[in-house]
Amino acid sequence: MPQYRAPVDDTLFLLTDVLGFHARDNLAGFADASPDVVEAVLREGAKLAEEVLAPVNRVGDLEGCRREPDGSVRTPTGFKSAYDAYAKGGWMGLAVPEEFGGQGLPHTVNTAMQEFASGANLALGMYPGLTQGAMAALLVHGSDEQKALYLPKMVEGAWTGTMNLTEPHCGTDLGLLKTKAVPNGDGSYSLTGTKIFISAGEHDLAENIVHLVIARIEGAPAGTKGISLFVVPKFLVNPDGSLGARNGVSCGSLEHKMGIHGNATCVMNYDGATGWLVGQENRGLNAMFVMMNEARLAVGVQGLGQSEVAYQNAVAYAKERLQGRALTGAKAPDKAADPIIVHPDVRRTLMQIGAFNEAARALMLWTALQADILHRSEDAKERQTADDHLGLLTPVVKGVLTDRGFANAVEAQQLFGGHGYIEEWGMSQFVRDARIAMIYEGANGIQAMDLIGRKLPKDGGRAMMAFLGEVQTFLKDHGEDPAMAPFTQPLQAGLNDLQGAVMWLMQNAFSKPDNAGAGASDFMHLFGLVALGYMWARIAKAALARNAETASPRWEAKLTTGRFFMERMLPETALRLVRIKAGADTTMALADEAF
Amino acid sequence: MPQYRAPVDDTLFLLTDVLGFHARDNLAGFADASPDVVEAVLREGAKLAEEVLAPVNRVGDLEGCRREPDGSVRTPTGFKSAYDAYAKGGWMGLAVPEEFGGQGLPHTVNTAMQEFASGANLALGMYPGLTQGAMAALLVHGSDEQKALYLPKMVEGAWTGTMNLTEPHCGTDLGLLKTKAVPNGDGSYSLTGTKIFISAGEHDLAENIVHLVIARIEGAPAGTKGISLFVVPKFLVNPDGSLGARNGVSCGSLEHKMGIHGNATCVMNYDGATGWLVGQENRGLNAMFVMMNEARLAVGVQGLGQSEVAYQNAVAYAKERLQGRALTGAKAPDKAADPIIVHPDVRRTLMQIGAFNEAARALMLWTALQADILHRSEDAKERQTADDHLGLLTPVVKGVLTDRGFANAVEAQQLFGGHGYIEEWGMSQFVRDARIAMIYEGANGIQAMDLIGRKLPKDGGRAMMAFLGEVQTFLKDHGEDPAMAPFTQPLQAGLNDLQGAVMWLMQNAFSKPDNAGAGASDFMHLFGLVALGYMWARIAKAALARNAETASPRWEAKLTTGRFFMERMLPETALRLVRIKAGADTTMALADEAF
Repeated sequence: MPQYRAPVDDTLFLLTDVLGFHARDNLAGFADASPDVVEAVLREGAKLAEEVLAPVNRVGDLEGCRREPDGSVRTPTGFKSAYDAYAKGGWMGLAVPEEFGGQGLPHTVNTAMQEFASGANLALGMYPGLTQGAMAALLVHGSDEQKALYLPKMVEGAWTGTMNLTEPHCGTDLGLLKTKAVPNGDGSYSLTGTKIFISAGEHDLAENIVHLVIARIEGAPAGTKGISLFVVPKFLVNPDGSLGARNGVSCGSLEHKMGIHGNATCVMNYDGATGWLVGQENRGLNAMFVMMNEARLAVGVQGLGQSEVAYQNAVAYAKERLQGRALTGAKAPDKAADPIIVHPDVRRTLMQIGAFNEAARALMLWTALQADILHRSEDAKERQTADDHLGLLTPVVKGVLTDRGFANAVEAQQLFGGHGYIEEWGMSQFVRDARIAMIYEGANGIQAMDLIGRKLPKDGGRAMMAFLGEVQTFLKDHGEDPAMAPFTQPLQAGLNDLQGAVMWLMQNAFSKPDNAGAGASDFMHLFGLVALGYMWARIAKAALARNAETASPRWEAKLTTGRFFMERMLPETALRLVRIKAGADTTMALADEAF
Repeated sequence: MPQYRAPVDDTLFLLTDVLGFHARDNLAGFADASPDVVEAVLREGAKLAEEVLAPVNRVGDLEGCRREPDGSVRTPTGFKSAYDAYAKGGWMGLAVPEEFGGQGLPHTVNTAMQEFASGANLALGMYPGLTQGAMAALLVHGSDEQKALYLPKMVEGAWTGTMNLTEPHCGTDLGLLKTKAVPNGDGSYSLTGTKIFISAGEHDLAENIVHLVIARIEGAPAGTKGISLFVVPKFLVNPDGSLGARNGVSCGSLEHKMGIHGNATCVMNYDGATGWLVGQENRGLNAMFVMMNEARLAVGVQGLGQSEVAYQNAVAYAKERLQGRALTGAKAPDKAADPIIVHPDVRRTLMQIGAFNEAARALMLWTALQADILHRSEDAKERQTADDHLGLLTPVVKGVLTDRGFANAVEAQQLFGGHGYIEEWGMSQFVRDARIAMIYEGANGIQAMDLIGRKLPKDGGRAMMAFLGEVQTFLKDHGEDPAMAPFTQPLQAGLNDLQGAVMWLMQNAFSKPDNAGAGASDFMHLFGLVALGYMWARIAKAALARNAETASPRWEAKLTTGRFFMERMLPETALRLVRIKAGADTTMALADEAF
């Protein structure tokens, strides 16, 4: 039975020592998030993840969800009580303003908890995850009335949320959508259409489900400029907040998926369902983007969560499984064979996953902190910088953490040999579950295009210049420190590759956009490597400081792991740059028939 | 419903134009394998794969195998009749000598057919695949009596074969095995023990199952020097070949696996089962290696097969699915959107998989040809060279074709967006099925260690020197040809990296074996890239020649695809070399507790 341990200590170290979280008292709500409070919250969250969410992960995979003939959906055994524990613990509203019943804590803390929840049980964690996304959209774009009506119940966990974008013929290209909204004359609309791949679209965990749905108001312009966002509750809500009649929305069927079986992925039929506009008419995509950006970061976090739980179980197996002898002589001569962790190729695998996870966690928290600055700072300039950062890094966190998160789950599974392929051992589930994160909320190819085509050139490249400048400043500040040399020198090389890629794109992609498209995925990964390398350099700096205070194997281990990243993983930037510079000519040369 | 088209034309081109297959009339049986015969055989094989094996692939995944209370195992609906068609077509004995009822055709032709079968239906193709492996071991190590008793029935497909190595506590480290063999006094032995992960261990496709089992004869030395190989039929065989009593071997349970559901993966219990020694006492590992080497190549072929079928379906989807517009302006202005094949990132993905598949197919056939030379040439020197090549390339074909084959299936699945995650579309099955090939017949980490620790230093590095020399000679011969420059120049760079890695290992790995272990996986992939690059250079040469004869988009497409490999894929050798040269220090530095 696989185990999960939430990485609380590493998270606290990153917040406190690396990211200066507690020096952020200028941000609303941060003063309340003292070190003691944050630690207590995360330890409580870890307990929930480890003792309540993780134990029902495998049963969720085995049983999946079941649609009954009446269209209701039953979640797997144990999901309801685990969900209730999550809701009762106040986790849903951790970062929601207190006026709606939330705890008003920083989004950064909530992000740490999202990692724990999705590492422990991805399928279950998605129900609250989507609810948080829907709340984020309502907070920004909902009317006061809508906020008052929906948010308190969602914070309680009594109601959950969904996002309804995809239709059978349109996923990425939302301009094609057909779902229609006809004004009822009383301020409400009547929605008709079919949505697919709706996670948590129908289930038995909550009393009501608050669907956020994009649709086209009759007569609206074609394409993305005619899309509006609606709130469509499963049960209509009376003005006093009590539940009224069943709305005309139902689950037509459940999808049979590769993984996340415990989450109900629904085909949702809207048959004249009553909905209310959220935000402005025809500005739905804008409103939806709030939810999508939040969701994209959360999906990156899921990639890390699966990478972490797969890693932990691979470590445990590698210490226990006896097979062969160390190349340098028996390490456990009293046993029939050595534990496989003695083998360099096994260790290489573990180092690679571990070195990724630590830096990815730093990147995730650093980016989450920008969201807090954006929403809570009173300094306009600071807000703008944070907004730039958030826009630029969101596709990187989503794309890189899920691509590598999946690849790491596969590598961790590999250490189990044949047992990794047998479902009982649980490694297959991590791989199958992690796979979805590369796809939903914008497939990673779309993230790469968003980065290279939209975020990079935006405002004359201001966000990218700020990132490059920040890393360069760090390197200048620490370039003379010999203890930092194993980190700063490789990072400078990686940064040069990133700068080289940006330069090449400036010169070659504006005139010929295919050059951007053909290099998009490599650029996203090149950027991700440098961002992770920068995180490692900052971790190293903090670990050196702590080690100077009190020498400990814990800090030494961080420095070694960081060096591994610098020696073996960061140099991939050079390969990515070669590929980008190869341009689009060969990639685009074949006629369609030649494939 | 996914489709499969066997790549017959490409296979014929590789055999005839690239590998000089038909110039090999000095090899026994090759004179009969005229171009017409080979083409007819492969077209017939393609038909079987496309029309009989592929159509039951998905039902195999859905239904899986079922163990009945009496220990018998039912294969999925349609497997029996598909298997019968395969057997009746004479495919099982395609390369088996005529004296045992086979057709005596080259192993190379059989390898091409193995790709078709495993691309069409991996789980089903494994039943005959294992039978061919077992026949190979009996052909080399079996007594005349054993060959006469078992081979004709296996060639007919009336009986199938298995290989029984793994036990619960021992996979890679076979020296730990516990299954015991006690002499019965009449030349037979009584075998007792438990084997796990036995593919095709029990099923309803054939009248009898011929298990090849490794066990320790009572009193044999400990470790690998005390392992013997036995043949243990499910039903005892009377001297006239008719079936006698049921033997004491049975399927205790079936494993629940991530994929290849249609193949019965059994726990096999040997309760005093009667078996007969194959080859010499305590020399079982040697005998087993014949089967394992054959099986390792066949598993590499499976990786390619899954990569190919995933590619074909991704191409079809990319041409059909309408989403977004080309960056350079609408390509299908009459439609609501362009087919996604217009997008550079989609094309990059397809080019990458396609460029791998063609070269991997060449590498597979080239290596299979060495097996034919080894077994059929009368020239001792030629046989030795072929043996060297085969030993050296077998772990590369197994490790690289399955690692990349799986990764390619994942990339192909990615192009389907959300649909890729839904089981009905079939892409998930390709991914789940392909995953096993990285694990069985020696996990790829073991392949890498076999390559770097055994095959590379063997005979003073003779095999590697021969490989490097052959590529260098090719580069010298074609270095002046400007049409070949896009291929020879990158190949030279890749070859230099490979030579650099070999040099570094010579200087740093003998004294410190961990340096080899920590770089093993990177070395295997570096070698694989150069081998694939060499194949592309040879394909390019042949395509240029054909194009000069009769210009055609087919040859142009090959040249473009080859350039893509050279520009974007081969440069990975530099990264691999950096990692190898990083050595083992950082990888091995952490205490076990630090993980």
